[in-house]
Amino acid sequence: MATIYRPLAVSLGDPAGVGPEVVGKCWDHRARFDLPPFVAIGDPRSLAAVWDGPIATIDDPREADSAFDVGLPILPIASVEADLPGHPSVAGAHCSLDALELAVGLARSGSAAAVVTGPVSKQQLYGIGFSHPGQTEFVAERCGVSPANVAMMLAGPTLRTVPVTTHIPLGAVVETLTPSLIEARGRAALRGLQRNFGISDPKLAVAGINPHAGEGGTLGREEIDLIIPAIEALRAEGWRVTGPHPADTMFHAAARANYDCALCMYHDQALIPLKALHFEDGVNITLGLPIIRTAPDHGTAFDIAGQDRADPRAMAAAIRVAAQSVVHRAAVAA
Amino acid sequence: MATIYRPLAVSLGDPAGVGPEVVGKCWDHRARFDLPPFVAIGDPRSLAAVWDGPIATIDDPREADSAFDVGLPILPIASVEADLPGHPSVAGAHCSLDALELAVGLARSGSAAAVVTGPVSKQQLYGIGFSHPGQTEFVAERCGVSPANVAMMLAGPTLRTVPVTTHIPLGAVVETLTPSLIEARGRAALRGLQRNFGISDPKLAVAGINPHAGEGGTLGREEIDLIIPAIEALRAEGWRVTGPHPADTMFHAAARANYDCALCMYHDQALIPLKALHFEDGVNITLGLPIIRTAPDHGTAFDIAGQDRADPRAMAAAIRVAAQSVVHRAAVAA
Repeated sequence: MATIYRPLAVSLGDPAGVGPEVVGKCWDHRARFDLPPFVAIGDPRSLAAVWDGPIATIDDPREADSAFDVGLPILPIASVEADLPGHPSVAGAHCSLDALELAVGLARSGSAAAVVTGPVSKQQLYGIGFSHPGQTEFVAERCGVSPANVAMMLAGPTLRTVPVTTHIPLGAVVETLTPSLIEARGRAALRGLQRNFGISDPKLAVAGINPHAGEGGTLGREEIDLIIPAIEALRAEGWRVTGPHPADTMFHAAARANYDCALCMYHDQALIPLKALHFEDGVNITLGLPIIRTAPDHGTAFDIAGQDRADPRAMAAAIRVAAQSVVHRAAVAA
Repeated sequence: MATIYRPLAVSLGDPAGVGPEVVGKCWDHRARFDLPPFVAIGDPRSLAAVWDGPIATIDDPREADSAFDVGLPILPIASVEADLPGHPSVAGAHCSLDALELAVGLARSGSAAAVVTGPVSKQQLYGIGFSHPGQTEFVAERCGVSPANVAMMLAGPTLRTVPVTTHIPLGAVVETLTPSLIEARGRAALRGLQRNFGISDPKLAVAGINPHAGEGGTLGREEIDLIIPAIEALRAEGWRVTGPHPADTMFHAAARANYDCALCMYHDQALIPLKALHFEDGVNITLGLPIIRTAPDHGTAFDIAGQDRADPRAMAAAIRVAAQSVVHRAAVAA
């Protein structure tokens, strides 16, 4: 059977951020970064404003493959105005949301093999009525999956982490955690390691939430009341799960060698070690979806947009991990 | 004026933990680790049980200098029973507390130049009525300094961090933070950089507490209500202070180059990056005291005690940093 060609769909994110620049640079260095054909989705003007490579505007994703050799294929999103780099606008926020919507739609319909999302400004999106905590939850909803059953994985060359809670105030973390939520995220992480990374019997290390993982209950009871029950439930299903571990001793090289993914209780617990170790090439992967979705693990960086200073390595890693996930999922399905 | 010789006082910590072993190994490798003379304080039996080097029992710290060449000098702490490595006991907890008390007393009286504290078990200490959150607060109280005005600094070769709150449940962090507490810890950190590290005009980077440092208030208001007022108060005194920074983007190499110390809001925010980057040689330094106090940044490790597997590098770094602080303080005083 002939392989039906489907490109990766890459949304440019906020047109005033660094998304267009890093996507353009990924096309420039597509050979060195070992990237398959992809199609950008966004306002072509935002790309032309910050990147002087050839742009190939197309109107069907199937054209991306042949166009990719001569220019960066883009499915254009109309915006009422062209943003200046570093100067986000309401129109730009709408444009970034439209690009995300189209990219997800293409993946759901099978016209794209995976979605890679460029950085958006949540602050800008909240201003136009976006009610999801982040792009991850938006994509989950569009796929008809409960946000509780997806997991945001952050992956670098030597560490993968999954936060149980994400974009909520730190003071709301304890009241948000439940054994069933921890269990659901852990299961999504474990299944994602199998499906997206091809690890047949994955090992999950679960972090405590309190200093020293609560030190036997004297520094907090969440480990005993919330985390251990979730670990036991996952173990009862046959998964390899350890913890709760003191979070501060989980992330040095010798500790990282003991697991495939660390399940963390809150945003910064997962993101601090990942970015301390892999700032340049961290990838955000949404697990638990029917589609494959990755993103570079950085923001819009409005402060350096348009200055040719943005580092494309995280976007390249996001595209590469998405392509690898396509291969792993095909192998699981075969 | 002749220099009056005063040794560094090193308490062995819990006799059943790895403290005795790493102190013994520091004496073995004193030349390679570049360590000045020090005197151990603890039960000599706990040292002899795990280390076969020569022990020189003394009863006056002034004897340490001449004894140091022929053996590890120790000021003995009597314990009612000898602990087995890896098997902590009530007697061992009392012994570790007595050693700490004597070490601090020697430094306060001027008989020791500094205190280096071996790892204790807080769980064991709580069992015998110890009511301080950790050794840091105990030392502060013995020195007559309010715990709010001291700061626990964690230092490795490329990163120093100071947590504003330490050994409390994560769920209690938000209610514990106040602008004045953040300000006091920041000031202690800045003064400590001057006094203990010889940095005349130090730079402090302050972390936010919420994801993305609250993202303009949409992910939590603590940055606006608590942290920014503290930063402004410190700046008004002329200190160089930046932030609040998103905690997850503060700890990669390029970011670390911008500051001398990161002020963190809670235990793991400070400890996760420090141990991810410098697990083997992190040092805990108590700032804001009339005496110098350091400690290796690891615990009792009861699980590996007595197996000759404990890594002495963190203890060596703690002794070395204490010795360097003695030099810097003398220079400031001169």
